Amino acid sequence: MPLGERPGDKSESRYCGVETEFSDDMPNVLAFNLTHGSFDFVVATLMDPAYRPSLMQKNGGSSVLPFAGSDLVLSPSQWSSHVVGKISSWIDLDSEDEILRSDSEITLKQELAWASHLSLQACLLPPPKGKSCANYARCVNQILQGLQSMQLWLRIPLVKTDNDTVSVNSDNLDDSWEIWNSFRLLCEHHSQLSVVLDVLSSLPSANSLGRWFGESVRAAIFSTDCFLTNSRGYPCLSKRHQELVPGFFNHSIQIVLSGQSVHSLTKINSDFAANNNDNNIVGVQKHPLRPYLEYVGFLYQRMDPLPEQERFELGYRDFLQSPLQPLMDNLEAQTYETFEKDTTKYIQYQRAISKALQDRVPEEKSSAITTVLMVVGAGRGPLVRASLQAAEETGRRLKVYAVEKNPNAVVTLHSLVKLEGWEDIVSIISSDMRHWDAPEKADILVSELLGSFGDNELSPECLDGAQKFLKEDGISIPSSYTSFIHPVTASKLYNDVKSHKDVAHFETAYVVKLHNIARLAPPQSVFTFTHPNRSTDKNNSRYMKLKFEIPGDTGSAMVHGFAGYFDSTLYKEVHLGIEPSTSTPNMFSWFPIFFPLRTPICLRPGSSLEVHFWRCCSPTKVWYEWGVASPSCSPIHNSNGRSYWVGL
Amino acid sequence: MPLGERPGDKSESRYCGVETEFSDDMPNVLAFNLTHGSFDFVVATLMDPAYRPSLMQKNGGSSVLPFAGSDLVLSPSQWSSHVVGKISSWIDLDSEDEILRSDSEITLKQELAWASHLSLQACLLPPPKGKSCANYARCVNQILQGLQSMQLWLRIPLVKTDNDTVSVNSDNLDDSWEIWNSFRLLCEHHSQLSVVLDVLSSLPSANSLGRWFGESVRAAIFSTDCFLTNSRGYPCLSKRHQELVPGFFNHSIQIVLSGQSVHSLTKINSDFAANNNDNNIVGVQKHPLRPYLEYVGFLYQRMDPLPEQERFELGYRDFLQSPLQPLMDNLEAQTYETFEKDTTKYIQYQRAISKALQDRVPEEKSSAITTVLMVVGAGRGPLVRASLQAAEETGRRLKVYAVEKNPNAVVTLHSLVKLEGWEDIVSIISSDMRHWDAPEKADILVSELLGSFGDNELSPECLDGAQKFLKEDGISIPSSYTSFIHPVTASKLYNDVKSHKDVAHFETAYVVKLHNIARLAPPQSVFTFTHPNRSTDKNNSRYMKLKFEIPGDTGSAMVHGFAGYFDSTLYKEVHLGIEPSTSTPNMFSWFPIFFPLRTPICLRPGSSLEVHFWRCCSPTKVWYEWGVASPSCSPIHNSNGRSYWVGL
Repeated sequence: MPLGERPGDKSESRYCGVETEFSDDMPNVLAFNLTHGSFDFVVATLMDPAYRPSLMQKNGGSSVLPFAGSDLVLSPSQWSSHVVGKISSWIDLDSEDEILRSDSEITLKQELAWASHLSLQACLLPPPKGKSCANYARCVNQILQGLQSMQLWLRIPLVKTDNDTVSVNSDNLDDSWEIWNSFRLLCEHHSQLSVVLDVLSSLPSANSLGRWFGESVRAAIFSTDCFLTNSRGYPCLSKRHQELVPGFFNHSIQIVLSGQSVHSLTKINSDFAANNNDNNIVGVQKHPLRPYLEYVGFLYQRMDPLPEQERFELGYRDFLQSPLQPLMDNLEAQTYETFEKDTTKYIQYQRAISKALQDRVPEEKSSAITTVLMVVGAGRGPLVRASLQAAEETGRRLKVYAVEKNPNAVVTLHSLVKLEGWEDIVSIISSDMRHWDAPEKADILVSELLGSFGDNELSPECLDGAQKFLKEDGISIPSSYTSFIHPVTASKLYNDVKSHKDVAHFETAYVVKLHNIARLAPPQSVFTFTHPNRSTDKNNSRYMKLKFEIPGDTGSAMVHGFAGYFDSTLYKEVHLGIEPSTSTPNMFSWFPIFFPLRTPICLRPGSSLEVHFWRCCSPTKVWYEWGVASPSCSPIHNSNGRSYWVGL
Repeated sequence: MPLGERPGDKSESRYCGVETEFSDDMPNVLAFNLTHGSFDFVVATLMDPAYRPSLMQKNGGSSVLPFAGSDLVLSPSQWSSHVVGKISSWIDLDSEDEILRSDSEITLKQELAWASHLSLQACLLPPPKGKSCANYARCVNQILQGLQSMQLWLRIPLVKTDNDTVSVNSDNLDDSWEIWNSFRLLCEHHSQLSVVLDVLSSLPSANSLGRWFGESVRAAIFSTDCFLTNSRGYPCLSKRHQELVPGFFNHSIQIVLSGQSVHSLTKINSDFAANNNDNNIVGVQKHPLRPYLEYVGFLYQRMDPLPEQERFELGYRDFLQSPLQPLMDNLEAQTYETFEKDTTKYIQYQRAISKALQDRVPEEKSSAITTVLMVVGAGRGPLVRASLQAAEETGRRLKVYAVEKNPNAVVTLHSLVKLEGWEDIVSIISSDMRHWDAPEKADILVSELLGSFGDNELSPECLDGAQKFLKEDGISIPSSYTSFIHPVTASKLYNDVKSHKDVAHFETAYVVKLHNIARLAPPQSVFTFTHPNRSTDKNNSRYMKLKFEIPGDTGSAMVHGFAGYFDSTLYKEVHLGIEPSTSTPNMFSWFPIFFPLRTPICLRPGSSLEVHFWRCCSPTKVWYEWGVASPSCSPIHNSNGRSYWVGL
């Protein structure tokens, strides 16, 4: 049964498993671990560990393979819901011993065929034995080509890397991530191949651990060895292990317990028996790992419930969306509806407008001067409302022009103005701001044309057009915005992009609620735009070269692409943005943007990543190009905007 | 006019060009260099070098761009046949100076648009100025996307790399190949982007130079500075430069001369005038680089004519062919015709058979014992003939069974036997050797079922089937064969494979007359098969891991795939093969095989290349899988033979 109830959590990590030894009595294995042990599933060895195909042949043995019982001993749903197959751990496909290699390949194929016959959801593959894993990977890759829905989980020990001993030239094979990386590259990032981490008593550095959150990790096996004993004799985890567990839960990584009980729990057991009279009969048979499971349940239950916004956004996690094209397309009512609910955003705008009004009109002249404020891209009116509230709050007189190019939104705008009785203050202009011939000039130009990457919804081009009706000393809100990127490991996103099997999807930027990713270095700023732009040559193309240094204790890491953000200065110190270190809290209008790489780039420890970003403009469209120049060169992505562009 | 007549040479390298300064009198440039100078084409600056777009704008200059004359000054065919455009050498798209960068981009686009308007065949792009070339590459890549047929030639100085100073961590930017490699990777190996090498007075090591023969090099510019002076005062080249020139000619690399005459040639000119009275009038105007051109012509003319076999194979150079499937398909008459002409091959077989006959039957018993010899895969009979000739040569008595599965070839075989009067000696069996029920057992089994990679036409499987009718102590000719591979740079082949735009073509092996490639390390053996195979478990699957060390003075190099060969021991010391270091001379039955890589792998100096090859077998087919494991992992190619296999 699940570890507990955590409001909002629908992830599989509520279910906890246990690794079991080979037994030919599977019903009993299930009864003991699930019914008496309260585990949700077992990771069970499928085949007699003594089996070797070459010995069978020599001994003229029976042709019945020594599997743990027939498929009939459990119901199909028991097999698929409660059993993860564990492949014989003796197999070694990269051994120098040709017979062992051949035995291993035959056994692996037999066991996976059997697991597939049982409709198991997943099988656990033993870790590669040595430094080389090519033949193992070749064989698994062959199997993956024909596999139905079963997942293959490659077991990888979470080995500590000690950065001091890592040199650029070494094979870095102390770092088990390298083995995983080799294996999955040889298997071409196959989406049915995942990792299961073996958690040991010592842990790698936080940066090294962090890489795994960008990989497809399905489970973490905690050996009883890595538990400490608390003052009451119960098993518990070290502080660092304790901190890791919620990270696993948050990333849908299931916990599996493994090993012998190493805690003397006579006292606990008798306590338990005294308090649970109903269980007296099975108390004798009580599962030795139950105290460990209860501790894991305790860690699960003490997590905070998911905040409402996170719960709302659960379905968007790591889901690729095409960015909006609000200039070329007209937004739909539903879209306006969603974004208008982002009260934080409008509060920030109201604060910025208030400050600008106060700066523009001294207190003593507040009843004499009427400020002309234009909302360009007024939509259904939220910024008009924020402007009027700012005027009311500051006691400044306002005349508002609400300019909107979407004729459908203008309908709503008209009824809002009528409803609110704003007819004397607000004029509605149904026009594209770039082409409107304004009857007077504005003191303040308010707009919210920002995309996840700042300028990617063409705010610069729109405001360049609109600023002709801004007074020489007028104020633009926002006054500037800057985009940011950093390299990320994002194997799920990479596979989703790859599944389209074309270049175009690798040359497209996506809006995505990033979750299952590893952020490999702090974000750096890319392009900045300032408004109004008083330069004579209004060139909105940009070029930026960035160099990222990955923290030395990370180890090697895979870059699948770049996460992008923006930060905008609305007015003076009032800002708005999603750049992680400065992001505005409780705002949900923007998910980050993701720029993929056609071929993931592996960064070795000590090497830096040089990436180039271009913002290119033609008379009809704006697009980005990007490419990595170091440690090795990628192709330039999206040349001439051939795959992805924003229409003017 | 061409450098000379060299029988068989149809390559463009017969034509020599000259680099000229900017002149707005193009007809005169052409007359001077082509008519008086005897050059075949000019590499001419298209635009006034003083032009800068930003200055034009400031000065309110005319909107007519300062090109060298209108398109009318030459005929369209003169432009396209005799002029290579030279892009302004001042451009620097990776400058820190934003104005220079912008001027450079505008100018580059204007010049290439103009060159395209003139239908020039090619334009020479100046070398990247600094360590970085990403913005230059981005701009060129954009232009390449829309370019019709014009070629872009990137000028790269052939800089000497000194291996002692190259460390793994350094940028290796002393090595100009690195710049080329970055540029072409950023431009995604575009097929219209090539290299022109600037040959300077000092040359890199032979291994470093060798890399360029796997790249798309179109021309080599020899500055007059790199010429020495011979005893008669004429320009000549150093021994190493001299050796390089025929290499260029052999790889269709055109020579371009450049610079001022640095040889005092008054004496030469007066000699010339005295001997060429007809030319007295133009003697005054004689082209200053003519003695250099004449020296290049001398180097061209002193090359040996192309051997007949090379001439015959010219059309096959670097042309990808699918390997034959003689087991699954029946060969056509034309194919038999071609291979039967390979007399060297049959002489080797005859030698092997003679030796085997002598070993098998002592001289004194030669008239008493009749040796049973079976030719399996007899085709239209060449090995039957070779066997009979060996019998005649050694005076041994022979009974021959000619087994052939292709019923069409059997028709020819019957008429051959009748024509030659071999009816008493030769029995023709129309059957697949794997299924024939032989009436007696053979002393000698002769076959030629070898592919370019040895076992790739399934000789092992066929001979395993045939050996059931070979006596216990019988002899198989061939007695063994081994495949070999080594890593190569082969940008032309890579682009040809890539042009199919699918994965399958990257997972296919090709038979190809390798020419425009760089061999990066000596070949190593892969799979060996020995016949007869007396082991009880006839397993013809194989697995081999190979590690190649690239010579230290090569510098970095690109691996586009692996060239494969075979060597076969027919009998004792008689061998037959195409492995370069031991290849049988004057044999043309086999071109090498080429295994491509989906993503080329760049080898840094000091790093080694680890590659894994598998020969996999199923009941219906045999296939290879291959993958690189170091310096980084490639995907395993051709998993389960999904893209390429040989049918049983």
